Amino acid sequence: MFNTEEAADSFEDRLDKLGEECGVFGVYRKTRGNVAADCYFGLYALQHRGQESCGIVVNNDGLFKYKKGMGLVNDVFRQPELAALGSGKIAVGHVRYSTTGASSTHNTQPLVIRHMKGPMAVSHNGNLVNALELRKKYELQGGIFHSTSDTEAIAYAVTQERLCKNSIEEAVEAAVPLLRGAFSLVIMSAQKLIAARDPNGFRPLCIGELPNDGGYVFSSESCALSGLGAKFLRDMLPGEIVVADGSGLRSITAHCPPECFDSAEKAGNMCVFEYIYFARPDSVIEGASVHRARRRAGKFLAQTHPVEADIVIGVPDSGIDAALGYSKESGIPYGIGFIKNRYIGRTFIQPSQNLREASVKIKLNVISDTVKGKRVIMIDDSIVRGTTTGIIVKLLREAGAAEVHVRISAPPFKNPCFFGTDIDNRDKLIACRLSVPEIAKELGADSLGYLELAHVPLLAKGANCGFCHGCFSNEYPIPVPAEMPKDKFESQIKQNA
Amino acid sequence: MFNTEEAADSFEDRLDKLGEECGVFGVYRKTRGNVAADCYFGLYALQHRGQESCGIVVNNDGLFKYKKGMGLVNDVFRQPELAALGSGKIAVGHVRYSTTGASSTHNTQPLVIRHMKGPMAVSHNGNLVNALELRKKYELQGGIFHSTSDTEAIAYAVTQERLCKNSIEEAVEAAVPLLRGAFSLVIMSAQKLIAARDPNGFRPLCIGELPNDGGYVFSSESCALSGLGAKFLRDMLPGEIVVADGSGLRSITAHCPPECFDSAEKAGNMCVFEYIYFARPDSVIEGASVHRARRRAGKFLAQTHPVEADIVIGVPDSGIDAALGYSKESGIPYGIGFIKNRYIGRTFIQPSQNLREASVKIKLNVISDTVKGKRVIMIDDSIVRGTTTGIIVKLLREAGAAEVHVRISAPPFKNPCFFGTDIDNRDKLIACRLSVPEIAKELGADSLGYLELAHVPLLAKGANCGFCHGCFSNEYPIPVPAEMPKDKFESQIKQNA
Amino acid sequence: MFNTEEAADSFEDRLDKLGEECGVFGVYRKTRGNVAADCYFGLYALQHRGQESCGIVVNNDGLFKYKKGMGLVNDVFRQPELAALGSGKIAVGHVRYSTTGASSTHNTQPLVIRHMKGPMAVSHNGNLVNALELRKKYELQGGIFHSTSDTEAIAYAVTQERLCKNSIEEAVEAAVPLLRGAFSLVIMSAQKLIAARDPNGFRPLCIGELPNDGGYVFSSESCALSGLGAKFLRDMLPGEIVVADGSGLRSITAHCPPECFDSAEKAGNMCVFEYIYFARPDSVIEGASVHRARRRAGKFLAQTHPVEADIVIGVPDSGIDAALGYSKESGIPYGIGFIKNRYIGRTFIQPSQNLREASVKIKLNVISDTVKGKRVIMIDDSIVRGTTTGIIVKLLREAGAAEVHVRISAPPFKNPCFFGTDIDNRDKLIACRLSVPEIAKELGADSLGYLELAHVPLLAKGANCGFCHGCFSNEYPIPVPAEMPKDKFESQIKQNA
Amino acid sequence: MFNTEEAADSFEDRLDKLGEECGVFGVYRKTRGNVAADCYFGLYALQHRGQESCGIVVNNDGLFKYKKGMGLVNDVFRQPELAALGSGKIAVGHVRYSTTGASSTHNTQPLVIRHMKGPMAVSHNGNLVNALELRKKYELQGGIFHSTSDTEAIAYAVTQERLCKNSIEEAVEAAVPLLRGAFSLVIMSAQKLIAARDPNGFRPLCIGELPNDGGYVFSSESCALSGLGAKFLRDMLPGEIVVADGSGLRSITAHCPPECFDSAEKAGNMCVFEYIYFARPDSVIEGASVHRARRRAGKFLAQTHPVEADIVIGVPDSGIDAALGYSKESGIPYGIGFIKNRYIGRTFIQPSQNLREASVKIKLNVISDTVKGKRVIMIDDSIVRGTTTGIIVKLLREAGAAEVHVRISAPPFKNPCFFGTDIDNRDKLIACRLSVPEIAKELGADSLGYLELAHVPLLAKGANCGFCHGCFSNEYPIPVPAEMPKDKFESQIKQNA
Repeated sequence: MFNTEEAADSFEDRLDKLGEECGVFGVYRKTRGNVAADCYFGLYALQHRGQESCGIVVNNDGLFKYKKGMGLVNDVFRQPELAALGSGKIAVGHVRYSTTGASSTHNTQPLVIRHMKGPMAVSHNGNLVNALELRKKYELQGGIFHSTSDTEAIAYAVTQERLCKNSIEEAVEAAVPLLRGAFSLVIMSAQKLIAARDPNGFRPLCIGELPNDGGYVFSSESCALSGLGAKFLRDMLPGEIVVADGSGLRSITAHCPPECFDSAEKAGNMCVFEYIYFARPDSVIEGASVHRARRRAGKFLAQTHPVEADIVIGVPDSGIDAALGYSKESGIPYGIGFIKNRYIGRTFIQPSQNLREASVKIKLNVISDTVKGKRVIMIDDSIVRGTTTGIIVKLLREAGAAEVHVRISAPPFKNPCFFGTDIDNRDKLIACRLSVPEIAKELGADSLGYLELAHVPLLAKGANCGFCHGCFSNEYPIPVPAEMPKDKFESQIKQNA
Repeated sequence: MFNTEEAADSFEDRLDKLGEECGVFGVYRKTRGNVAADCYFGLYALQHRGQESCGIVVNNDGLFKYKKGMGLVNDVFRQPELAALGSGKIAVGHVRYSTTGASSTHNTQPLVIRHMKGPMAVSHNGNLVNALELRKKYELQGGIFHSTSDTEAIAYAVTQERLCKNSIEEAVEAAVPLLRGAFSLVIMSAQKLIAARDPNGFRPLCIGELPNDGGYVFSSESCALSGLGAKFLRDMLPGEIVVADGSGLRSITAHCPPECFDSAEKAGNMCVFEYIYFARPDSVIEGASVHRARRRAGKFLAQTHPVEADIVIGVPDSGIDAALGYSKESGIPYGIGFIKNRYIGRTFIQPSQNLREASVKIKLNVISDTVKGKRVIMIDDSIVRGTTTGIIVKLLREAGAAEVHVRISAPPFKNPCFFGTDIDNRDKLIACRLSVPEIAKELGADSLGYLELAHVPLLAKGANCGFCHGCFSNEYPIPVPAEMPKDKFESQIKQNA
Repeated sequence: MFNTEEAADSFEDRLDKLGEECGVFGVYRKTRGNVAADCYFGLYALQHRGQESCGIVVNNDGLFKYKKGMGLVNDVFRQPELAALGSGKIAVGHVRYSTTGASSTHNTQPLVIRHMKGPMAVSHNGNLVNALELRKKYELQGGIFHSTSDTEAIAYAVTQERLCKNSIEEAVEAAVPLLRGAFSLVIMSAQKLIAARDPNGFRPLCIGELPNDGGYVFSSESCALSGLGAKFLRDMLPGEIVVADGSGLRSITAHCPPECFDSAEKAGNMCVFEYIYFARPDSVIEGASVHRARRRAGKFLAQTHPVEADIVIGVPDSGIDAALGYSKESGIPYGIGFIKNRYIGRTFIQPSQNLREASVKIKLNVISDTVKGKRVIMIDDSIVRGTTTGIIVKLLREAGAAEVHVRISAPPFKNPCFFGTDIDNRDKLIACRLSVPEIAKELGADSLGYLELAHVPLLAKGANCGFCHGCFSNEYPIPVPAEMPKDKFESQIKQNA
Repeated sequence: MFNTEEAADSFEDRLDKLGEECGVFGVYRKTRGNVAADCYFGLYALQHRGQESCGIVVNNDGLFKYKKGMGLVNDVFRQPELAALGSGKIAVGHVRYSTTGASSTHNTQPLVIRHMKGPMAVSHNGNLVNALELRKKYELQGGIFHSTSDTEAIAYAVTQERLCKNSIEEAVEAAVPLLRGAFSLVIMSAQKLIAARDPNGFRPLCIGELPNDGGYVFSSESCALSGLGAKFLRDMLPGEIVVADGSGLRSITAHCPPECFDSAEKAGNMCVFEYIYFARPDSVIEGASVHRARRRAGKFLAQTHPVEADIVIGVPDSGIDAALGYSKESGIPYGIGFIKNRYIGRTFIQPSQNLREASVKIKLNVISDTVKGKRVIMIDDSIVRGTTTGIIVKLLREAGAAEVHVRISAPPFKNPCFFGTDIDNRDKLIACRLSVPEIAKELGADSLGYLELAHVPLLAKGANCGFCHGCFSNEYPIPVPAEMPKDKFESQIKQNA
């Protein structure tokens, strides 16, 4: 009756969700310290951005020690592993989500390379649209690749520039124009820590300051700062390169779009799904609270898809905030409809029969007391294939819900992402196959309402940035390839005998 | 700057909480099946009742195979471990919380014993007040003990009766009067699965039915049923013994108090803290919803400790429901004030400096957007030593809260528990040292209000049971010892040379 | 083509050998020290006596900490495990061989028990012939058993005596007459370390002295002393009980047979197979060198089974010494015929096809240069089923041996052992099925010669003891049961429902 | 009293020995099969060539799966790991010895790289003298390095040639002249398995044939063939490249020195220490038996350094054969003087006091019976620093040896090796500091004799090759650098900021 295979997928994956590619973190301390632990706590707070693998590289006066492994930060790093990394002034870390499964050890990050110009470690969040071209170019020059990730192409770009530049930051500056797509990078050299963000600013990256003038931190999200006692300084600008070294922080803005310096303009195109789903609600991105953006999504939903009901509930975790927003706007009471089992380990034995349903049941229980005999509005952040949502609707009915009205705090997914989000093929996306009423029917819902596309740019009100919503609108801020293959590097290589 | 020791404690422990001793689970299938996986899913849902160790024993036609280990269910049991347990008709499992730390492997449960009368596995939740006496008695008869747990004394009691009885259930029936205190037991013999509950019914224990007449399940809480597709049948009566075997279910009610059979009376004394904190909100105990009881606690708090404020927030996880109840009763909006990091592994590297504060910060972040500039009512379920609560108040102020009013959904802890809850020594309990205003001052709170003792019995309105609230009231339903030493068995033994 | 199961068996088992049950070790230091490491080094030297599981118990002023696990000493104990055991004055350890396979964690030793009279840890090597009777007796008194090993019965015997005696050594003294069979025991109480040996002295047990009057060591074999810098003091007498405590060493000789005190007599019946196979060649048992005994076996073989040949080789490890003896006596040159792969881990993936042959080939290679074109005399210590020996003969022929003459440094195995050696059932023993010429034919050997029974008592010339050679002669020094079931405790228990 | 650190070193390292760098293995099956298991058994037999790390890469129709890890083959590969590698036609494996310690995960082999021309896996045994130059050249072209090993430079060389060649074998052929020094390579492409050996043939590499025309095997030593049932075909020629693919075996001899084709000449310069110490005695290298070469060393020692004595013993494992040779030549009886503990795990807790002595005692015990009162000749294969040898002499005296005459089956080590053997710095080598009589005195030996340099080329009598004995003679077959730094790549890199 049960599967003989362990399911290595994370919970979110199981629940039929989207996958983010990564979280990056780096620390520069003015004096030697336990920078491995700094990264550990930073990555622990960024764990929601990637659960497949993680890594930390510590720079001890130019000598790099690292540990990378498959699994959660807590599983890969125990006290002996942290102790073995030793102390230093600089460290860089990474958490990674991936769709390629168990054997991709070679893609774990940070990528560590050695070169006559000095060692380098690279943590990357994002996706290049010209990674294949770059790779081809370097391979034709005789370069060899150990991994299938974009990150190695970035390392090549920086290294080749480094040969003819005087400093690592000049090399990064020269490499950035070669990279097209989304990249939030933290790069460690023997003496410096450098952060760089693509000119569209697709993925977040912020700067924190350690207490007592102790140094600096770069992090994908602001939520990773408080664990180290660091203070949020500011977000990186789109296109900005920031260097942390013995002289403090230095900003290179040569690649920033002009809007960055025009207070009347919004610069860049932040992935709006960071606000809707990826980021942690306590993070503040580009000046806008993620939690607030989600509540606002609920408010818009209440305005555009009102319905008579007794209770509004959210699917944990990211549906909760929107449910609260819907409740406030509609005046319908907010309730707690679900308990999510929070003992999520690296692996979980999967039931084999009625797979999806049992799997959902084990991790998500309905609180009958909340929904019994009630007309329920259930808010979730997205529908991908629809399977999980359908099961949740069924569970609510079994628990006695009189009506189930589904509201989604995002527009329908209909298009691929080229900038670091892992979206299913179009033929798997329910919104590509069916109309909204058809979807409602397939889910078994009494009604269904999505967030309007027009409301998307309004979610992160007050944010200092424009947005990318290509997955909803099919409008991308930069030219994109016709289609993005999942295993891009495995599939397009012409080999000789 | 950081500790060189791993902290093996669970998150709840770290957050300065109380500890429950155990969760028990057993399954009897009418036909052979993957009962190991049944237990796995059951224990996974009961994981909140104990994170230190766990175990599963599978009965394969009288041959017992087991695996027990330190850590979470997900860590101890992977596919190879489950596969090695094999299939069978009966299995019993256990999750354990313990205060004694890393080396107590010998106390992991279920306890498995061998005897000429047949093998037996025992899972126990609770605490005996006469364990020492029993132990002494058996030791004076020449018995030897491998563990320091009550459970082994229970095993002795049953085994000794078994010698002169015709069946295991008669032995259990004869043993029950010897045991004084709290016990929810699931006992597996070669052919039967037997559940027993003490006549006070201190700890919950319920019966579930597998689909298609497939067999039965005993579980500490109803929340563990749905993962197996099992249907809630009923709670065990206080004092009841239920036998599951080839003939179905049989109930022995000889030790049930008379109130069990008087519909006008409430029987037993369920630990009221199960409703306030231990149990999962989606569980229904003695007919009363745990979630509802917590909301009701919030309602009472709003009535007895009103305050002008802008927002009501709850400390996750168990303060959330009460916050919702407070909000509804008071009309003050409910908000989400905290994000709790949910990637909690078996071990976690602990920061060494400003230990408590850093430790709290790493696991609990304030959503500034919710509390900035607001007068905040913060609901938590209890204050033990007060350290954690004080830190949380401080975090709220740092995030910009204008006022912080603390409301606790339980009365002050002032007394020990003798029935399975691990409460600190009186000199550590803040409520034993200070008055309520003094506590408020120590916490840095603008005001502080506890649940009234009088409201405690009203929380689980509609429950078919009386309550034990000795930890609050110092009134216990049965005579208790003068004091309960933590390491009772280690400390009271007179040894010869 | 290969098996999907790991073979947990040790190398010796794979090579179709006999299994010893255990090695015991204990240390009493006059001042606190790293007694866990003492045991570690002691057990490491005794590893050949048992590879299935091992354990160490450290006594820290009466508080026992222990670690037991499946696998080799090196696998179970790493630095963290040893460190966690802490320091103390006394410790006891155990290595165990077992036939019952992977799941017998409950039989790992030392056995640790708790009792009002004080904690006790027991390490046992040997086998009781009345274990079942004892067990039955204690079970009828209401005792419960966690394991299926004899050791728990011994613990009961000692504990019951302890109730009415003034000291642990008096209890041991009173318990010894209750135990019939083979036992070399090391028992640790809160304050003492006690060694006891059965009156027949079936299994070895010796006393060592730590340097600088630092304390004492008990060990199954003398080879375990040098790693600790300990000096060999003497062998324990058959029936002797020796107590190590703050006052030094005390001997209790009440149960020693009278021959112990008659210098003209040999006392006890040491298992002669300790000399032939079990013990390490560098051990000296009862005053006789094991290496010398094996050389002497070779000498006898040369006298009784001479043959014209070019080279004498031994099957490693224990055939080597006998080969040297044969060579010296016969004048035929000694050569090194085999290389045994010495990277033997806890587990080894087993080839699935031509199982036995491939398995032997992977671990044992012939040195062609030694045997090519030669008439070879190959000495091994025993033939059990014959499979492995047959394969080795085949390998020699494939390597070019012109003739292969097999000589065995023991008589044919034809009978069970009741005193701690695990011998196959009679129907598996080749010597029970076939005559010597038939065996030679089955092995593919040109000739075959066994050690004469008459020579067996002469092997350990100068030893202060008599011998048990029941497995060869069917003559046992004490009455034995009709047959010894393998899983004695599982099979003979009448259970109630 | 004991160290708090685990010692990761292997036993040989502990015993003050030299270290070999690697063992290589590859298999090409004509039909799909369990090539992962083939490599497993092959590497298991080559384990003596490297215990630090190991790896296997399986080629499943062009898709490479691999697993590499620190530790012994048995520790890194269990059934799940082998199963995860899947089946295929081709696989390549590697065992590695290294001096750089625990954190060198990035240097584990086989090296796997990806490239548009196809994936490639490289296993390498040896050492390049121009690795730094090559590395510099590729780095100046913008290449990046992940490891500090020579192997990555080799991969670059092959890849760059591959860009302009039609096949992988042509690329290897073009790359070989760029590589100076010692290399025995096994290279796997998507469709082929290629072996290459440097024109001096410093390190062994042989070809085996699977039974029933099933395919081919490349292996560092012949001893790894029998475990797979493979037949020894021949040694690779110095400078030869052999391709195994669907068409069978093809040999490319363009880089072979002319002597290879002149039957009157010996081609190449095999490391003579392969015969003296590195190789397994059952291996046959270049037509000469390793076992026989060692016996011959003993014979020469007996001729040049005779002494009156009672017994000749060898230090296990590699002194044994020479002792036998000495005994035969001198007529002095051969005896077994030592027992070496064979339960050697990956790690071993190291005693902290009298470190060297205790460490030796734990692993090597003297058989007193053999040496007591005797004049002993003790043969070992080499003296590096002298510490261990001195301790062994002391142990023999403590065991009662009347005289101890040390004979070494190699000349004194006085010079570095540039071709893959890890020899200590000159200032650590006892033979660089002291004269032979001084060494004898420091060892506490009654006399000391080394093998004559003139006898070195005579050891492997009949071998089809010349020899390199630079470490003894300071005469190297090719130009060598002034000195070889241990961490060559870490130390010579000029980095930019």
